[in-house]
Amino acid sequence: MTRHYNFCAGPAALPTPVLERAREELLDYQGRGLSVMEMSHRSPEFVAIAEQAEADLRELLAVPENYKVLFLQGGASLQFSMVPMNLLGKGGTANFLYTGIWGKKAQTEAKQLGFGVHVAGSSEAGGHTEVPAQADLTLSEDAAYLHYTANETIGGLAFDYIPDVDVPLVCDYSSSLLAEPLDVSRFGVIYAGAQKNIGPAGLTLVLVRDDLLDRRCERIPGLFDYRAMAEAGSMVNTPPTYAWYLAGRVFQWLKHDIGGLEAMAAINARKAASLYAAIDASGLYSNPIAVRNRSRMNVPFVLADERLDKPFLAEAEEAGLLNLKGHRSVGGMRASLYNAVPEAAVEALIAFMADFEQRRG
Amino acid sequence: MTRHYNFCAGPAALPTPVLERAREELLDYQGRGLSVMEMSHRSPEFVAIAEQAEADLRELLAVPENYKVLFLQGGASLQFSMVPMNLLGKGGTANFLYTGIWGKKAQTEAKQLGFGVHVAGSSEAGGHTEVPAQADLTLSEDAAYLHYTANETIGGLAFDYIPDVDVPLVCDYSSSLLAEPLDVSRFGVIYAGAQKNIGPAGLTLVLVRDDLLDRRCERIPGLFDYRAMAEAGSMVNTPPTYAWYLAGRVFQWLKHDIGGLEAMAAINARKAASLYAAIDASGLYSNPIAVRNRSRMNVPFVLADERLDKPFLAEAEEAGLLNLKGHRSVGGMRASLYNAVPEAAVEALIAFMADFEQRRG
Repeated sequence: MTRHYNFCAGPAALPTPVLERAREELLDYQGRGLSVMEMSHRSPEFVAIAEQAEADLRELLAVPENYKVLFLQGGASLQFSMVPMNLLGKGGTANFLYTGIWGKKAQTEAKQLGFGVHVAGSSEAGGHTEVPAQADLTLSEDAAYLHYTANETIGGLAFDYIPDVDVPLVCDYSSSLLAEPLDVSRFGVIYAGAQKNIGPAGLTLVLVRDDLLDRRCERIPGLFDYRAMAEAGSMVNTPPTYAWYLAGRVFQWLKHDIGGLEAMAAINARKAASLYAAIDASGLYSNPIAVRNRSRMNVPFVLADERLDKPFLAEAEEAGLLNLKGHRSVGGMRASLYNAVPEAAVEALIAFMADFEQRRG
Repeated sequence: MTRHYNFCAGPAALPTPVLERAREELLDYQGRGLSVMEMSHRSPEFVAIAEQAEADLRELLAVPENYKVLFLQGGASLQFSMVPMNLLGKGGTANFLYTGIWGKKAQTEAKQLGFGVHVAGSSEAGGHTEVPAQADLTLSEDAAYLHYTANETIGGLAFDYIPDVDVPLVCDYSSSLLAEPLDVSRFGVIYAGAQKNIGPAGLTLVLVRDDLLDRRCERIPGLFDYRAMAEAGSMVNTPPTYAWYLAGRVFQWLKHDIGGLEAMAAINARKAASLYAAIDASGLYSNPIAVRNRSRMNVPFVLADERLDKPFLAEAEEAGLLNLKGHRSVGGMRASLYNAVPEAAVEALIAFMADFEQRRG
């Protein structure tokens, strides 16, 4: 068995100890004679798994008691529909910060569903290289909430502050939740697709403050309803049980193998700092993002001569450095440094990049 | 490692060879150095997995070319919302056959979303022990489609015919798809949650005839749109990649280990016939469903003295016969005999039931 270094933007690398544990109990979970995949979601065994996962997540993020934690399906993209349908039932406008492709998609979806939208801040003029400043945010008078994207996975642009506004803050935290400690109490809704730092694709985490559970639209699809999901422990229907179990294993790994989110943040800071330093010191590689808004999770970079892209990718793959190709919409390279990507992977990448530059740059 | 016999109604037993293969390649898929869970859904490796799964499913069910196959999230329950939003955009009423809890839920959801509904046939008067006859179906004049539930998982009531109507037929096939050959061309839409005969929870299969792709409502959530999903190969956003892969492994198992759906149907017929014969011959166990509508997948039965329920379940579990408790809404027992439940499991169950009756009946 070989495990290469995987810089995929998502579905992304999972911690090897989590996968090893999953393999060990895949056919027989703790002597019960069946796989977690084969358990009723209402069985005592699975309910224990589900509750432990929620408790561990609450501990890791210090989630206040007045927040519900939901384990849903559909990815962050389904939240683009669910958030407005849950929060705009009593009127008002959805306000958005536009800092890249994902924030744009969220805005487009709210509009498509017939809701009023307002752009309260944008980084478009500067090519999404710097997030709008707090002082420049201009919410509409009837704002029901402000939505933003903490970390734009494709652009590699991250907020270095939490906006301070008078309306509930809704944040797409897909690519940076659990990468560092977070003050959950600043938010109305936080959501994240699992396939970056949480678990396999097919699971979405939603944290919602309980005073926001009664603003839903009348004709909301039953499975969209945060309140119904909260009351049913995310089991209005069968949840994605195996993904939930694996997320729980990731939470255990964060707690016990890593030592919590402070420790994880320190590791992530070192990984990102090394890679950006290598990029900035080189004559071949570059990254256009303002230093304070550089993502620690997704590091896009381009080569000075794009004819070198193909050989770079081919040689990287041969060296066991996988999935460095940038998103199809922007090209270039992208190294995603999620929690499960070890420091050794980043060191190997930096060494490869230096070697490639010396030979081909 | 122990593998017990698992009669769970869902998430249900998976074929042991499928889980063994999954275990083998869990950390390193075919020497690529990463897990299937860690692959980009747009990588050549995963696209090959996805396409093979679709091709195998099309072969198993002989799906005509004018049908799209979608691999979605949200379970069958999300289809309760998606079907009316995709099919009622040009007006008309959703018609339903009411034969149990799941059919009722589908109807309730369409109504909740503001659509007109009409009950075209019902088995309620007889306590859902016999499906309505073809001659008794009365569709509304403005029917846009007729929805029914091929197999009611909780009641153990199954259609022994495919309704013949002038409007598109929509069928919730969650608990019996792939249990036997099926004439897909009779249907407009077929959908099924995976966690019975297809794969782990978190995946939903939808087969939709392509002339039905342009009836959607204007304000449909982006991820609900069958046409958009069909055009994007079910990848409008990140699909549940690992569940998709496992479904593909189940399709391979059906093709190569079982020998296709004719062979599967013969095995399923034998399993159900043996268990119903044992129930009918006993003085302790009984099943109320009309013989022609007895489900081959879900066999509910009650004990003549319900004080015996607890010891029955406890002793069954001790004997390695798991998850025989009936649904919380109806009580009693239920043995689900999905594809992955081997004939040996049914034989063991029958032997246990006979022994229990002799000792306690």
